[in-house]
Amino acid sequence: MSTTQFDVIVIGGGPGGYVAAIRAGQLGLKVAVVEAAQLGGICLNWGCIPTKALLRASEINHMLHNLGEFGFAADNVRFDFAKVVKRSRNVSAQLSAGVAHLLKKHKVTVINGFGRLAGTAGGQRKVSVSVDGRETATLTAPSVVVATGARARVLPGLEPDGKLVWSYREAMVPTELPRSLLVIGSGAIGVEFASFYRNMGAEVTIVEVADRILPVEDAEISAFARKALEKQGMKILTGAKLGAIRKGDNAVTIDVTVGGKTQQVTVERVISAVGIVGNVENIGLEGTAIEVDRTHIKVDPYCRTGEKGVYAIGDIAGAPWLAHKASHEGVMVAEQIAGRSVHPINPLNIPGCTYCRPQVASVGMTEEKAKAAGHKLRVGRFPFIGNGKAIAMGEPEGMVKTIFDDATGELLGAHMIGPEVTEMIQGYVIARTGELTDAELKETIFPHPTISETMHEAVLAAYDGALHI
Amino acid sequence: MSTTQFDVIVIGGGPGGYVAAIRAGQLGLKVAVVEAAQLGGICLNWGCIPTKALLRASEINHMLHNLGEFGFAADNVRFDFAKVVKRSRNVSAQLSAGVAHLLKKHKVTVINGFGRLAGTAGGQRKVSVSVDGRETATLTAPSVVVATGARARVLPGLEPDGKLVWSYREAMVPTELPRSLLVIGSGAIGVEFASFYRNMGAEVTIVEVADRILPVEDAEISAFARKALEKQGMKILTGAKLGAIRKGDNAVTIDVTVGGKTQQVTVERVISAVGIVGNVENIGLEGTAIEVDRTHIKVDPYCRTGEKGVYAIGDIAGAPWLAHKASHEGVMVAEQIAGRSVHPINPLNIPGCTYCRPQVASVGMTEEKAKAAGHKLRVGRFPFIGNGKAIAMGEPEGMVKTIFDDATGELLGAHMIGPEVTEMIQGYVIARTGELTDAELKETIFPHPTISETMHEAVLAAYDGALHI
Repeated sequence: MSTTQFDVIVIGGGPGGYVAAIRAGQLGLKVAVVEAAQLGGICLNWGCIPTKALLRASEINHMLHNLGEFGFAADNVRFDFAKVVKRSRNVSAQLSAGVAHLLKKHKVTVINGFGRLAGTAGGQRKVSVSVDGRETATLTAPSVVVATGARARVLPGLEPDGKLVWSYREAMVPTELPRSLLVIGSGAIGVEFASFYRNMGAEVTIVEVADRILPVEDAEISAFARKALEKQGMKILTGAKLGAIRKGDNAVTIDVTVGGKTQQVTVERVISAVGIVGNVENIGLEGTAIEVDRTHIKVDPYCRTGEKGVYAIGDIAGAPWLAHKASHEGVMVAEQIAGRSVHPINPLNIPGCTYCRPQVASVGMTEEKAKAAGHKLRVGRFPFIGNGKAIAMGEPEGMVKTIFDDATGELLGAHMIGPEVTEMIQGYVIARTGELTDAELKETIFPHPTISETMHEAVLAAYDGALHI
Repeated sequence: MSTTQFDVIVIGGGPGGYVAAIRAGQLGLKVAVVEAAQLGGICLNWGCIPTKALLRASEINHMLHNLGEFGFAADNVRFDFAKVVKRSRNVSAQLSAGVAHLLKKHKVTVINGFGRLAGTAGGQRKVSVSVDGRETATLTAPSVVVATGARARVLPGLEPDGKLVWSYREAMVPTELPRSLLVIGSGAIGVEFASFYRNMGAEVTIVEVADRILPVEDAEISAFARKALEKQGMKILTGAKLGAIRKGDNAVTIDVTVGGKTQQVTVERVISAVGIVGNVENIGLEGTAIEVDRTHIKVDPYCRTGEKGVYAIGDIAGAPWLAHKASHEGVMVAEQIAGRSVHPINPLNIPGCTYCRPQVASVGMTEEKAKAAGHKLRVGRFPFIGNGKAIAMGEPEGMVKTIFDDATGELLGAHMIGPEVTEMIQGYVIARTGELTDAELKETIFPHPTISETMHEAVLAAYDGALHI
């Protein structure tokens, strides 16, 4: 068993942890990353990345069943489900290997094992590493970054069983396409799986306890998404409560109550996507000044915990549970440790994306929240049906909604649904981060013909009026 | 024959003209648009829009020939070329009808005919309208906007003949796919047609007189594009001079000289895409104070001509010949006429896009121009192979290049090649328009996983270093 001295120890090699390590390495610090599973964490191995590969396949399947619209035809269109899943796994493996390469390039020591805060010694933080419960190393450093992430929340009676009930893990590596599927929870993860399986040909039902799907999105976008998904043949039950669950050999029947009326939903598989819980267990928080609130470590705007020298970033440090929030925090914390001055993150400048078809993307406040915050609003809307490129692409289903403060012209929020909006939202994020107002957005020349012109029109719509509707 | 009084007369119903009319209508002005052909002009009927519909088809064809990579298969993949072209024409027709609807909604009078400046009377500008050479109306207004656009430049010996030699018009409505094609000129129009026909299966050769393709783009992007297109099987001859042209029944043979060596290129069809000339003839410029320089009307930064009350916008008013430049000028001129204060356009804030595969998009200065302007530079580069989404999509071919002023942090230029870059470039355009610097772009949280993260990495690369390469 070795003891080694570092400048920073990062516990967890997910997007927050490995980015913190790379950035610290760039800044000349001696860094260790302790990771018990795969580099890249859930995001890269069981989340963002492999789902995008799956969703790419489902978009292709959708296209293959609409070839006639574009003047094409093909016979015997088919897919090999194992190959679709295999490609997704290969993409994750390639990127995880890439993270290992990046860490090596930045002279970061990667230590395989389960990291745990283990007190202090001589002004240094100690981190113990164990494999299969046996301690294999003790590391010391003045700074420790806790980035242990989160895992799926489990509903009683709906524990993933490897066959009938799936969490995101099982849903990512199916051996065959189920004929019917119930998705519990309509956040980004639930809706993305629903979109993948529906576009591959499964019958999909979504149940959501809130009164609308994608409940963190603006209500209008949420309603637009529901309509679009229902048009694709999904069944959506909101304001829904789950009752008795009966498992058969190759089927699950669940009682679902909506508005006092109970119906039985029988499906081959169930995906439970009802949120996450932070991995706060067994990482040595007991007896420290680090506070935990509902499975998340409490941090200040600089990601500092109650213990001096100990930072927490990413999912373990609370919502929004997004990889780009984690990696941005990783950079911020690494720079702090290296003695640079940093800015805390404004949560309203963190975009959110859902990669279903049509895609959803947003930044800032919903109309409801902006009103609740006391702003007098100017709201602009523009539908993709007024956009030449969207029509030329055969993708006219979508809209953009902008919300401005009437007094200052601040862009309080921007909400998009439609093709490629996840790649476009960054324009509004740049505008918010640079504290631009309606004036600069109006003056911006968006290239023609692009779908991004809808972003301009939605700004004009909030003021003098859009040009193309 | 009627004489009617307006607040503004717009000559030409292309994207500059019709947008000027809509904006003037929004601002309460009484507006007439005089258009001899189709509303929407070349852009909507014979340019930007129908080519995007064609390019969409060629992307689908490409996908259909690479299904195996994604786990899909199909037999007897085929297209009906007439249907592909028909869809493109339908898109144009739909949008042209949309423009008519928008003009009506904004109470703009549309007058079919050829408009011509016809002197002044009582402080009013007169515009005469003729159909087939016969005057059908005289309109008067204090302000006239000349938006007569441009047409393809014709090389001697390569006049479009409706069969063997095509301009963009014939190239847009082919009756069958030529087996081989020579594209003369490698600007956006030439390269887009080359990309369409190559991806549909034709053998394509590009000849360019300059020493590289897409000569207005940054040299590195141009080299990247060349390599990508050659990998797709295109033959590209740069620094090339055309010699003798021999036409056969269904073939053209052209002598092409590169570096003193002459080769004969024989193809079924030739597309001539060697730039445009402004439509300055017969529009009543003679005897006015309006100056013409190489087929373009000279204007000041507010699009004012030498005649008071007469403005010129869009292609007729000079480079860049882009619809979004035209429509932005249309808005600016309409607002001036309505008495609003306006900002002149900074040409460095006008993005340019080429919708080939991979796409190209840029804004601001190339590295060469930035150096020539005397700036000390910081240059950042990031390849798409370092981006998780690009890999998940199976589209890792691309790069972003940023150019900053070392002293001020101003983003002098941004250059992109790869999938969806035409939808992404607006982020950099917003940054330039808002006069943001490297500081705000570094602080911006780009959503993960998106290809737009490469925009962030290319900024970091210009300073402390990218994270994912």
